[in-house]
Formats: sequence, structure tokens, C-alpha cells
Amino acid sequence: MVQVGANRYGKAEIRVVRIGRGAGPDGSDVIRDWNVSTSLSGDLDGTHLTGDNSKVLPTDSQKNRVYALAKELGAVEPETFALKLASFFVSSQEPITRATISVEEYGWTPIGGGGYSFARAGDLVRTTTVVHDADAGTSVVSGIKDLIVMNTTASEFWGFPKDAHTTLAETEDRVLATAVNACWRFRPEAMPTADWATVASITKQTILGTFAGTYSYSLQQMLYALGSALLSTVPEICEVRLALPNKHHFIVDLAPFGLENDREVYHADDRPYGLIEGSVLADDAPEAGLAWD
Amino acid sequence: MVQVGANRYGKAEIRVVRIGRGAGPDGSDVIRDWNVSTSLSGDLDGTHLTGDNSKVLPTDSQKNRVYALAKELGAVEPETFALKLASFFVSSQEPITRATISVEEYGWTPIGGGGYSFARAGDLVRTTTVVHDADAGTSVVSGIKDLIVMNTTASEFWGFPKDAHTTLAETEDRVLATAVNACWRFRPEAMPTADWATVASITKQTILGTFAGTYSYSLQQMLYALGSALLSTVPEICEVRLALPNKHHFIVDLAPFGLENDREVYHADDRPYGLIEGSVLADDAPEAGLAWD
Amino acid sequence: MVQVGANRYGKAEIRVVRIGRGAGPDGSDVIRDWNVSTSLSGDLDGTHLTGDNSKVLPTDSQKNRVYALAKELGAVEPETFALKLASFFVSSQEPITRATISVEEYGWTPIGGGGYSFARAGDLVRTTTVVHDADAGTSVVSGIKDLIVMNTTASEFWGFPKDAHTTLAETEDRVLATAVNACWRFRPEAMPTADWATVASITKQTILGTFAGTYSYSLQQMLYALGSALLSTVPEICEVRLALPNKHHFIVDLAPFGLENDREVYHADDRPYGLIEGSVLADDAPEAGLAWD
Amino acid sequence: MVQVGANRYGKAEIRVVRIGRGAGPDGSDVIRDWNVSTSLSGDLDGTHLTGDNSKVLPTDSQKNRVYALAKELGAVEPETFALKLASFFVSSQEPITRATISVEEYGWTPIGGGGYSFARAGDLVRTTTVVHDADAGTSVVSGIKDLIVMNTTASEFWGFPKDAHTTLAETEDRVLATAVNACWRFRPEAMPTADWATVASITKQTILGTFAGTYSYSLQQMLYALGSALLSTVPEICEVRLALPNKHHFIVDLAPFGLENDREVYHADDRPYGLIEGSVLADDAPEAGLAWD
Repeated sequence: MVQVGANRYGKAEIRVVRIGRGAGPDGSDVIRDWNVSTSLSGDLDGTHLTGDNSKVLPTDSQKNRVYALAKELGAVEPETFALKLASFFVSSQEPITRATISVEEYGWTPIGGGGYSFARAGDLVRTTTVVHDADAGTSVVSGIKDLIVMNTTASEFWGFPKDAHTTLAETEDRVLATAVNACWRFRPEAMPTADWATVASITKQTILGTFAGTYSYSLQQMLYALGSALLSTVPEICEVRLALPNKHHFIVDLAPFGLENDREVYHADDRPYGLIEGSVLADDAPEAGLAWD
Repeated sequence: MVQVGANRYGKAEIRVVRIGRGAGPDGSDVIRDWNVSTSLSGDLDGTHLTGDNSKVLPTDSQKNRVYALAKELGAVEPETFALKLASFFVSSQEPITRATISVEEYGWTPIGGGGYSFARAGDLVRTTTVVHDADAGTSVVSGIKDLIVMNTTASEFWGFPKDAHTTLAETEDRVLATAVNACWRFRPEAMPTADWATVASITKQTILGTFAGTYSYSLQQMLYALGSALLSTVPEICEVRLALPNKHHFIVDLAPFGLENDREVYHADDRPYGLIEGSVLADDAPEAGLAWD
Repeated sequence: MVQVGANRYGKAEIRVVRIGRGAGPDGSDVIRDWNVSTSLSGDLDGTHLTGDNSKVLPTDSQKNRVYALAKELGAVEPETFALKLASFFVSSQEPITRATISVEEYGWTPIGGGGYSFARAGDLVRTTTVVHDADAGTSVVSGIKDLIVMNTTASEFWGFPKDAHTTLAETEDRVLATAVNACWRFRPEAMPTADWATVASITKQTILGTFAGTYSYSLQQMLYALGSALLSTVPEICEVRLALPNKHHFIVDLAPFGLENDREVYHADDRPYGLIEGSVLADDAPEAGLAWD
Repeated sequence: MVQVGANRYGKAEIRVVRIGRGAGPDGSDVIRDWNVSTSLSGDLDGTHLTGDNSKVLPTDSQKNRVYALAKELGAVEPETFALKLASFFVSSQEPITRATISVEEYGWTPIGGGGYSFARAGDLVRTTTVVHDADAGTSVVSGIKDLIVMNTTASEFWGFPKDAHTTLAETEDRVLATAVNACWRFRPEAMPTADWATVASITKQTILGTFAGTYSYSLQQMLYALGSALLSTVPEICEVRLALPNKHHFIVDLAPFGLENDREVYHADDRPYGLIEGSVLADDAPEAGLAWD
């Protein structure tokens, strides 16, 4: 005999753009360019077992709610939006006991002086995921992804174990490049008053500053440096999770052509790549609960 | 104060192609076209905290081991390969207590009669993930992804709750299309003798047959039908997890052009899409442990 | 002073799916899964110079015409559809003197026995481009793209010039893999009676058979073999253009691990890749005119 | 009978990163992050017809030459690199009469104060294509791609013809968004002394300024405005070609939810999209020759 296990459903990748007309500095427009995904769970055995949809709020209705809420709230921070949306689904749909809302935000830079012209930034994607559970409460995890950075020096890698399959040479000067994918979990007590915009700004600057300022012996060390810098700079957060692909830049052997390559010419390889994943926690971090599910 | 949390590292997306020369039917070649990712965890605080790499087997060495093992084992099933590789890292590297190996396999169809010519199938990707933990033991989760299927009829969707944001019309005849992403967990007692190739073949046929043979009232119902069919057909497995994007085909309104659209012309939309995720379990399924981590 | 040069505009990537209800063998459904792009040119200086849109049929109207024509024509071959659509725009819009219609078709394989269930084939994309010009007439170029094929042997590469930057070893036995991107131009006199479906079927079989049956000394030689085989097999066509990326499979050096690699373990590299492009023409091929623009 | 038509071959997507150590302002490093593609043509019938490779410089040797030249030239502008490379192949390989070199350059922004830390810019890709032909001479076409811009107002679209398939409403206030893909052809007489870096900088600023400063009645009008502004600002160039996808932002109908949508909430659609392509030429532009092939 078989049974229905954990399940959820929703609308993925709703590309809503909310323009705050005159809502910015000096009356300029504000753009909230979002990719919103919703996911609901609760008492949904009926639709799985018999196709009884009496408890299944259509994903189309979820999408419509996203648009309507974008109108109602204005060009707010993505965390504000996701919190309100998650709460709405759980409170308004009796069978639904949990809602997970994810938002990707794409940045735009003002151009011209008219207040209505913009160029897409392209340097990173801002993210947030809110889980609102009727029993377990609410969590907020925000972050960035695809922030590509490089140190052309100040990186070593040596002292590693050698086994029968080790051919890698030790190096005291290599290029270190990665795409920073980082998420930070907010402390529950900080959520009601958190200044989401300021945290987004400070975290980006902390990541850039720490990456540039860390002399590295391994990408794991850089991961820990980034995580601990974020935790010490932003008291509202208690845990940082990072996934750092090692974007390998291999030095090209130019000796066959009678040339010396003194750390000048590299091949940027696509695959395979090292992938370093890890968490850095405050000692007093509360349990994560459903935050990372 | 902060601390190192859960972490792991490895080499992602190693594109190894193993050709079994004359290993196939009638002496034809066999192609194993794989995308292998490794990930190790254990006593790795040193490299995070101080850059001490004495316990960090380089991801480059992991990659080399993949190539060497592909040579040694021959053109075996991906589960056989992943089990051996995961076990190797944990048994040979004292600080490493857990290894996760993922393999994607791309299929090739023989062409011509020479036994050495092939065309890439392109209909799906076969997957497997093995976790080998020094304490918790070994798990195997295999599956398929990106198998795109469509029923042009035999699908209804109605009876759902209507709220203030519901505009969707009920329908008794719609196109149902999805990309089947399914993973099944093997029972521990079945792993030593499982016939991986046969399971891969039967599961694909079961998915196709069940999709075609199920009259559907919701995509959740289809998910459950797929999962329960797999469990009843393949005794070696105890849990199936599925992620089914609803690849919306919207009927185009041709009335403005004086035409009736009797389920003939559709717009295949990209985003947003419904996303239905769920698990189907055997009643006697043992605990999953680390299998899905 | 500056002037408006060559220009065109249209709607790109209209994802129309036409289901021919009961139109297939034994009353099964037929799926035409298309990605249609339109492009119009003509007397369009006004909109460029002053924003006078009186001659600019909106791309939205072009899209609507695609849907309506799909209804009217039924589940026809893509060439039939593109010819009708191109002709429509030029004949119905006085300022428009040229229309280019491109269609990508994705294949579906019947599953189950109900006549309404399908799985996406995924092995290749069928293409066609029709140019209809008020003065120059009409051309049809059809083809396939992304048909990935591999010979595990029967390929050599040697005898090439060596310069100061040559390190490549000669080889008498290598893996040859490519993604066949091929387009064939129809003879004007063959267009009125061409059997598009049969040509699509024969060309695919000819490409697969020729690839498998050709012992190759260079990818250029394979390109010519493919082109000339198509021309000799399909009298309706007079020119074939091919773009063949050399999907490099590099033999992995296992000697450091004490293993011999006798053409068994390869690394499938992403970038860079060789790219071989060329045309094969019938001696009596008429001028191409606008066919390839 | 069939014959070999036009053909070429080369190495595509060579991901070379050239670091100019201390070559930047105040002794900081300079990064040239390039994706280089080579393509050669000439007397290549032999390899097509018989597999005689005696005139086929391997694409692997071409790749090696890219790396070696990157070393020799230093962290130069991409045009300088492409000109030298194209010339090299034609002058050093007797059978080769034409070389086409394309370079994509990805930008990096300095971070930290150390002179060796960078973040990838992500706002656009800089491009150049050089064609060097033994007979026809040399051309340089440079440009940018994927520069995404948006005006939240100052865009109208009306006055277009209505046919039987027109349902689009006229609008006097819409969002205008596009990804600017623009290429400019240099005047032959300007090439020897052109300041490539300055042109790259001025063109970007001109595009941003013109986009922000143009009140638009059609995307074609914007295309012409961009092209003519570039031509009048940069005397070194004589022709600009642009491809502007209309990245549709559709206003969402919130009336069913009792809400007014006064240009605030939009759906950013993926496909289909309008695509406007065109050229703007100086009246005295010389013939393009092979520049755009």
C-alpha cells in the first residue's frame, strides 16, 4: 500500500514588474522587477487521491493575487511583499497551512536625468524566501546570487593531501574567481523591524569588501570569511549559507611556443568546476525550523 | 561568536564519456555519457578557519579519480559507478565521512549497422545520486528528468475554490503537458542485487504508460498516479518524489477573427508555470536518512 | 547626413501548437508544435524618421494572423504554413514588399494506444524559412538543427601543416562527434509539388546513414559527404549549407595513475570547439537570390 | 554533379583571460576577459573532397595562437588583438586568404583598493569582428550586445493600420524596454588611428543618453535615433546596425479584482517579442564589402 507524502504546489516564475510612479528620490520612478514563485501546502490529499479540487486554490489565482498585491503594496522591498503574500495564503485558505514565497529581484540603474529611464544592472540577483507556517511561524532568508568576483592574486592553494590520483601542483599565487551565491537567515526577533533595503545594501558591500580584503589559502577559507563578516556586520542575521563555484582560470602553458607565462594568460574553463558549499552560524543562532526547506 | 556549520565540497559536472569497446550486443560499442558531480564532507574545519588544507583532497584529484574509475569499471550502470566512487572517497580519506555522488546520463541510439555510430536520444536524462555515510550507511536515489509528455485530451480541471482573485474558467477538456522529473529511492535490502538497467527501463515505460493511461482531474492526481504506479511495478523502490511543471497550453481566443477554436490552436507559454511537487511512499518505507539531502 | 538602411521588423518566437484532432493515422491526433517568427520589410522610412506608423502592421497583429492561419490551414507541414503566411503579408499590406517566415518544429512521439498521448522526441529540431519578395519571388530553405551524432571510431586526422603553434598530435583513430545543423534550398521548380513531409523524413535518414557510413579524415570531408549525399538523394534541392561544431572528446591521460587508456575514457569539452561551415551546391543550382538572407 | 561552395572553419569560443599585471591606473591590474572565435577560408577544397589536410591549419593551432598573441600583445583593446590575429593567419598560411576574428569582452569593475580585485559588470557585452581578406582588405565592426534599458514612460504607439487580425489598442503611454544590440562599422581611413577604447566608451554613453532622451512613437524611431546619434557623435564610424527586441511589459488587467492599474503593475513576457532590425548609414559611407559577412 502507498500513501501521499510531503507535497506542495504553486505558480513559479511570475514576472511582475511594479513601477512606483514618482516614488523615488526627487520624484523619479522606482522599478521593482521581480520573478515571484509561490508554493502552498496543507490538506491536499483529496486532489492527489481522487482529483477532488475543492481545496486547491488554482495557481492561476495565486498569480492574480501576486499582481493585485503588487498594486496594493506599492514598490516595496521584496521581503515586505513576500511576507504579506505568504501570510495571505495561509490566513485566507483554510486547508493551506504553509506558504513559501520566493522572489528574485533584478536591479536597474537610473540613466539620463528624467527619472524614468533605466539600464539593467546585471551584476547580481537579489533574492528572498519567506516561509509562513501556521504552526512553526515565519522565517525570512534573503541573499544574492551570481555576483561574480575575481582576485588576480592574493590566493594560494597548497598543503593538501596527495593520493594516487593527485596531479595538481601546489601554488602560492593563483587567480581566485567565483560566483557568490549567499543567503542569510534573519533572527525572528529582528524581522518585525528589519530595514530590508539597508541589509541588502550592507551585505553586498560586505561581500565585495571581504572578498577583496581576504588573502586566501582555500576557497573554503574565503567562504568562512564571507560568512563571518556578514554575521558580524549585520546583527539582524544569524546564519549564512554560501555556495561558491570555483570558476577555474587555468594558466596556459606557453613554453611550447617559446614564451614565458608569468601569470598573464589564462583559460577560463566552463566545466568541471569546484563547488564549495557551507554554512556559518552565530553561536546563539536559534533553530532554523523550516527556513531552508 | 560564529562557527562553521554544515559544509561540503567537490567537483561538479565532470563530463566523462566511457566507451565500452565491443561491450554491447553483437560486439557493438557501448557509450556511457555522464555528467558526474562529487561532494565530500567530514572534518573540514581547518580549511575554513585557517586555510589548513591538510585534510582537503583537491577537487582536481576527485576528478582524476572519476576518470580512473571509469577506466577500471568499464561501461557500467551509473548506480554501480556512483556506489563505488562514493565508497572509495570515504574509505580512502580518513577525514572524509560522507560522499555524495550524482550522475546524469545522456542516452545514445545506435545508427547504421557498424556498431560504432550513435545519435543522441534527447528524450530524457537519467539520473542517480548515491550518498555514502560512514555512520548512516548508503542510499541510492535514481530517476529521470526532462521527459516532456502531453495528453491532448482526457484532462479536466474544475471544482476548485473561487476567491476574490479567481478568474480561471473551469474546464472539462484541456491539454495536459508536463516535464516529468521523478526520483525513486531504493530499499536498502534491494540495493545489493538490484538490476539497475532493468529498473531504469521499467520505470520509463511505467511513467509513459501511466501518463497516457490516466484520465486526469488535476496534475496532483497525475503525480500520485505516476508515483503509485512506480511503487507497485518496481518492488525495489519505496518512495518516489516528483516535480511536475504544468507546461501551460492556453487556448487562443480566435473569436475576434470570426473563427471558432474547438481545442485546435494553443499558445505554449513559458512563464509562469504551475509547479506540482510531491512524494508517494510505500507504507512500509524505511526512514529516508540522508538519501534526499 | 545619415539615412535609413536595410531594415525589417516582426514578431519573434510565437509558440503556437496546432492540434489536428483525429487528423492522424487511425484517427489519432496530430501535433504541430511550432516556434514561428515573422519579419516584414518594405516602405518603412516613415516610422524610422518621424514615428509615423501608418504603414506599420503591428507585430501583435502578425502574431494574431499566425494563430488564425494555424486554425484555417489545419495541422499542415511547416513549409505549407510559412508559404501561405509570407504570401499573405505581402499581398495584404501594400507597403510591405517582403516577408520572411521562420518555423522551428519540435517533434512528438505517440505513446499509449489512445491516439492522444505523446512524448517530445528531443532528438532534433526541424526548421524552415520562407522568403516571399514582391519582385524576387519565393524561396524555401528547410533543415534540421541540433542533431547530435557520434562515431566512436572510423575517424582520422593527420597530414595537417605544423606551424610554431601546433602541438596537436596526429591521430588515426579518434571519436568524431558533432551537432548537425543543415539547411537545404529547394529548387524553384520543385516547390509547387514538393512533398515536404517526405523530404523531411528522407533528409534525416540520409544524414544519419551518411554520418554512420562515412570513414572520415576531417570534419570538412564529413560535411561534404553529408551535403553531396543529400543533393543526390533529394532531387528537389539544389544547395545544402551545414554548420558542424566539432564536439571535442579528448582522450584522458591516465598514465599518471598507472592505467592505459586505449580509447575508452574521454572528456567531453564544452568550449572552445572547432566549427566547420560550408555549402555544397548542385552544378546547375540557380542563383540563391534572397533565400539565405 | 555537385561542388564545394563557400566554406570556412575555425575555433569558436576560446575563453582567454589576459591579465595585464600592473598595467592599469596606479599600477592596478587590467583584465581582458574574452571569448574569441576564429574562422579561416581559402583554398580548402582538398579536405572537403578527399580529406587531404595539407592546407588545414588545425583549429587547435589557431587556439594556441590566440593564447600566444595574448601574451605578446599584452592587455590591449579587443580590436587591436583581432586585427593582429586576422592578419597573422592570412600572412602566415599561404592557402588561407581570409580570416574573420570575433571577440566578446566581458567587463570587470575594480573593488577594494588593492588593484587586484574585481566584480564582473554584467551590464553589457562588448564585441568586435575583424575581417581580413587578401584581396578585399580589412574591416572592423565593433559594438555592444545585451544592454537592457527601459523607459517607464515617454513612449507611445498608435496610428498603425488595422486589419482583420488587429486587436492591439493604441496607447499614448507605454513602457518601452529593449536589449540594445548594436554594431558599428569603422571607416577604412579611420582604422589606423582609431582610439578603440574611447569609441567604446563614447558609444555606450551615447546609446544610454539617446535612449533616455528620446520621446518615442515606435521602436523603429528609437532605432533610428540611436543609429543617427552614434553616427553624428563618432566620426570614425559610417554605419550602425541594430537589433532591438521589444521586451514587452504588458499592463495587467486588475479590474476583475476591483483595482485600477494606472501604469503600475506589468507582466514582463518572455515570448513572443517584437524584433526590430535596421541599419543607419552615413550618406558618404563606403561600400561594406565583407564587413558584415
